[in-house]
Amino acid sequence: MHAYRTHTCGALTKAEVGNEVRVSGWVHRKRDHGGVLFVDLRDHYGITQIVAKADSDPLTILETLRLESVVTIEGKVVARTAEAINSRMATGEIEIVADCVTVLSTSAELPLPVAGEQDYPEDIRLRYRFLDLRRETLHANIVKRTQVIRDMRRRMEDAGFTEYSTPILTASSPEGARDFLVPSRIHAGKFYALPQAPQQYKQLLMVAGFDRYFQIAPCFRDEDPRADRLPGEFYQLDLEMSFVTQEDVWNTMEPVIAQVFEAFADGKPVTPAGSFPRIPHAEAMLKYGSDKPDLRNPILIQDVTEHFHGSGFGIFASLVESGSVIRAIPAPGAGAGSRKFFDDMNVWARGEGYSGLGYINIKDGVPGGPIAKNHGEEATAKLIAALGLGPNDGVFFAAGKESQAAKLAGLARIRVGEQLDLIDRDRFDLCWIVDFPFYEYDEDEKKLDFAHNPFSMPQGGLEALNTQDPLTLKAYQYDMVCNGYEIASGSIRNQSPEAMVKAFELVGLSQSDVEERFGGLYRAFQYGAPPHGGMAAGVDRIVMLLCGAQNLREITLFPMNQRAEDLLMGAPSQAELKQLRELHIRVVEPQAKA
Amino acid sequence: MHAYRTHTCGALTKAEVGNEVRVSGWVHRKRDHGGVLFVDLRDHYGITQIVAKADSDPLTILETLRLESVVTIEGKVVARTAEAINSRMATGEIEIVADCVTVLSTSAELPLPVAGEQDYPEDIRLRYRFLDLRRETLHANIVKRTQVIRDMRRRMEDAGFTEYSTPILTASSPEGARDFLVPSRIHAGKFYALPQAPQQYKQLLMVAGFDRYFQIAPCFRDEDPRADRLPGEFYQLDLEMSFVTQEDVWNTMEPVIAQVFEAFADGKPVTPAGSFPRIPHAEAMLKYGSDKPDLRNPILIQDVTEHFHGSGFGIFASLVESGSVIRAIPAPGAGAGSRKFFDDMNVWARGEGYSGLGYINIKDGVPGGPIAKNHGEEATAKLIAALGLGPNDGVFFAAGKESQAAKLAGLARIRVGEQLDLIDRDRFDLCWIVDFPFYEYDEDEKKLDFAHNPFSMPQGGLEALNTQDPLTLKAYQYDMVCNGYEIASGSIRNQSPEAMVKAFELVGLSQSDVEERFGGLYRAFQYGAPPHGGMAAGVDRIVMLLCGAQNLREITLFPMNQRAEDLLMGAPSQAELKQLRELHIRVVEPQAKA
Repeated sequence: MHAYRTHTCGALTKAEVGNEVRVSGWVHRKRDHGGVLFVDLRDHYGITQIVAKADSDPLTILETLRLESVVTIEGKVVARTAEAINSRMATGEIEIVADCVTVLSTSAELPLPVAGEQDYPEDIRLRYRFLDLRRETLHANIVKRTQVIRDMRRRMEDAGFTEYSTPILTASSPEGARDFLVPSRIHAGKFYALPQAPQQYKQLLMVAGFDRYFQIAPCFRDEDPRADRLPGEFYQLDLEMSFVTQEDVWNTMEPVIAQVFEAFADGKPVTPAGSFPRIPHAEAMLKYGSDKPDLRNPILIQDVTEHFHGSGFGIFASLVESGSVIRAIPAPGAGAGSRKFFDDMNVWARGEGYSGLGYINIKDGVPGGPIAKNHGEEATAKLIAALGLGPNDGVFFAAGKESQAAKLAGLARIRVGEQLDLIDRDRFDLCWIVDFPFYEYDEDEKKLDFAHNPFSMPQGGLEALNTQDPLTLKAYQYDMVCNGYEIASGSIRNQSPEAMVKAFELVGLSQSDVEERFGGLYRAFQYGAPPHGGMAAGVDRIVMLLCGAQNLREITLFPMNQRAEDLLMGAPSQAELKQLRELHIRVVEPQAKA
Repeated sequence: MHAYRTHTCGALTKAEVGNEVRVSGWVHRKRDHGGVLFVDLRDHYGITQIVAKADSDPLTILETLRLESVVTIEGKVVARTAEAINSRMATGEIEIVADCVTVLSTSAELPLPVAGEQDYPEDIRLRYRFLDLRRETLHANIVKRTQVIRDMRRRMEDAGFTEYSTPILTASSPEGARDFLVPSRIHAGKFYALPQAPQQYKQLLMVAGFDRYFQIAPCFRDEDPRADRLPGEFYQLDLEMSFVTQEDVWNTMEPVIAQVFEAFADGKPVTPAGSFPRIPHAEAMLKYGSDKPDLRNPILIQDVTEHFHGSGFGIFASLVESGSVIRAIPAPGAGAGSRKFFDDMNVWARGEGYSGLGYINIKDGVPGGPIAKNHGEEATAKLIAALGLGPNDGVFFAAGKESQAAKLAGLARIRVGEQLDLIDRDRFDLCWIVDFPFYEYDEDEKKLDFAHNPFSMPQGGLEALNTQDPLTLKAYQYDMVCNGYEIASGSIRNQSPEAMVKAFELVGLSQSDVEERFGGLYRAFQYGAPPHGGMAAGVDRIVMLLCGAQNLREITLFPMNQRAEDLLMGAPSQAELKQLRELHIRVVEPQAKA
């Protein structure tokens, strides 16, 4: 018999009744039933019920043993009586009558319970993460995470991609966030950077002719804590393909992502591969007021600016004259309810920093509220008809400069959808947002800047860069969105050295800046670069969606806290002076503020 | 038709003859045959021959185009004439007659050639790695590397292991090498460390109940350049199992590793799973003079100390009296050759810093050389019989303190094997070295130290630690060796807090030292820790063996040079003052030596 186990704690069934077995695991729960002790013994695979009979040696040992101690149990498998069968457990038809108990490791008093799902303070959970990870939901989430990643990997391999690992000690990459730096010991005063993404390396792989790359890639950004990003590292499903158009990337990745979702959606509907809507960025900003639309929300925003030219509702009329736009956000069925809903939305909008949300509430076919009153009966009827509103619907209006109105309309669309409970939460609605603008105008710096990825190819290429108004240029750039979250982003890359220099020139950078910042890639493009493109999907975000988790720490093995500390391992920590000397650096204590 | 290709450059066969196709790739080679231009067009998948007819537009474009430019070719697939068929190429039966050529990217003059395998200076290869990686052998090695890793991963999954990624920004780990440090921005004066190995995390995973962990794990050690280790990062197949004995680890991993080797050995014999010799460390040091024996070498070292008690060969006799040992290294068939071989070995041994190698050369049954002469005829005959030497064999003798004699004998065994060409290079001979000593005596520090991994369980556990002479303690610690290289190392871990404290106490560290250095793990062991063990295999070393590569740079995508510089990306580099200020550090320029 094996020293520790003939079976795991999830393996025994009626087929083994009568056999002598050995199992090992953690003491999960204990129940005393009139002198007989029942112990739930737990391991990674399941739970097996152990019975320690009255006055037996096993009982003597087990009854004093703390929960979470580790034991080996030897005994006979017996069938449970009919009323004791637990059909929700794989091992629910049997139990083991313990003949012999060996204590492998005792547990001290627990700082947090393992059995049960009580909430516990985060600091305790992180400091005792090895206990927290034994808890059912977190344990299952972590296992699901590994399964999702394994599934992604296999589907990428099946799609003809090869996984290449790119360097982690590398040069600063131009993703725009702050780098983690690593001082060099051999080169005094110089530093490596941890990659914010393997962007340049994957492009170099294409130039080196590897054709289809992917990687479950660790990425590092030294950013300030944010609710949707853990400090330190995160993982991307990163990929790149040569000799492709953006449609090739979409057609390749839609099945991979859709199938990963389907495999782990627990039966919830997923947008099928081949039918992801491809929504131009401008259309998304109009209809959803966001480039990350939640398509589960049925509300569509409409532009109604034209309706308010010379309107009797003077505020909108004068806004429209001065170039503002009016966006309408229907609120189906809300007219039948109370006015309070409409007034509360207005208060909310002011709380968000906007000047307010106008509205019309239609009750039994009669439009109410100040806008309807001032806009005029006929004009209001025309507006309502244009919006296709029913006799008990409502509608909100967001007015302002186009980008502001779109943003407010988008937020209002989400809020109305939530308040009216219009969102089917048990679905995964996926889409592409395409045709992102290449440049944007930076109001702070009063200059042109890249709207997204500077490595993207502008539509029209070098000629468009030379001839078009930069702010009208679109990029071969796209996002994949699920339920209101951006889950992937990508583009066809600009692999022409001339177009690259021109694209940077327009944001005020010279050829020598390009050479200095992206020297490896720029050099590579001189020696035969294939057209290529790809994307990167956020593994953590996808796992969160599939686990229904609200916090990244619920799907991460050993997360840091929001202060970027690993409370379990005690990182970061002070270094020895000898180490710092070897690295040619000295710590500069922050100055007390004067 | 697709914008860039209907087929890859490795896809076309006779079946497509007559079809109009489009292919894209790099201009690999050009040959002018009487006005007709033949172009080898290359991509990741293969090479396709393109024909540009005399006076055609394609010819005009292609003849001036530099090698390594990227083009799209449209044309008709035609069958080659019988004498032009190249059976070594997948596409060797066809060629494409070009109708239309589109230049996607031109190449500047090449700093190193892609076609052909000429050796090129390392600095140029690394600076233009994207070109170097297009070369046939390196490209194939990199692809093989990805295949080996994929195969490892699948076999580990099939063996019931789950891949968990452990943190990369973490605390200093006690592997004994120098850490790479990462200054914390949020915590002035504190540093993260990159993991030398995920040792503590994988043990924590066992304590958290995950049962079977593996990871293709990036590891980081800031070590000085060594021939067999690239600066910076390297990869391990890292694994850990709960509720196991060391035999379980061996029985689980032997099939995985043997099958990975078999899958990529190109038909070379591999020691079959289930038959890896398990050689105790002490036996390995005796028979092979090494804990990394190359079993392809048939020579076995023997201890012949007893033969020289009171020998007429005074040097050995007096060495033996003073506690030295004599090890014999047979040199089969060498006696028939010249004396020069024996004398050269002696010179070599002196060059290695030893006092020399004695020898007996037997020619036609007559033992020659000073040892035979002085040792006496009868004693020499007895010695030769004991060693089982034939009438034309030779034998060398390494004398000295046991560890020194073993080491010299081991080196001599390798050299004799090579010089006599006794090693079958077309084989992968795998074995386990087991029962490593737990402690060793550190002659410099004049104190006991861990011989290998301080986390290993000493055989006999706490009781043995309390009662046995520490230098006689063995550990449940093992290496896997292939062809003279350590390819994996592992152990059953010491998961008892008491035994851990005691083990460290014997090397002079207190309980508080243990808590300070390994706090997370030590704390975890208080709360129910299962018996566990595992190992880590060197992915790079295994890939090198399977590729027959002599240098890690031949199997690594973007290696740093021996000065730890990435010449392609320009790392490490100077940081901006703003970055350093944010990280609370200042560079200290090295002082000029006085």
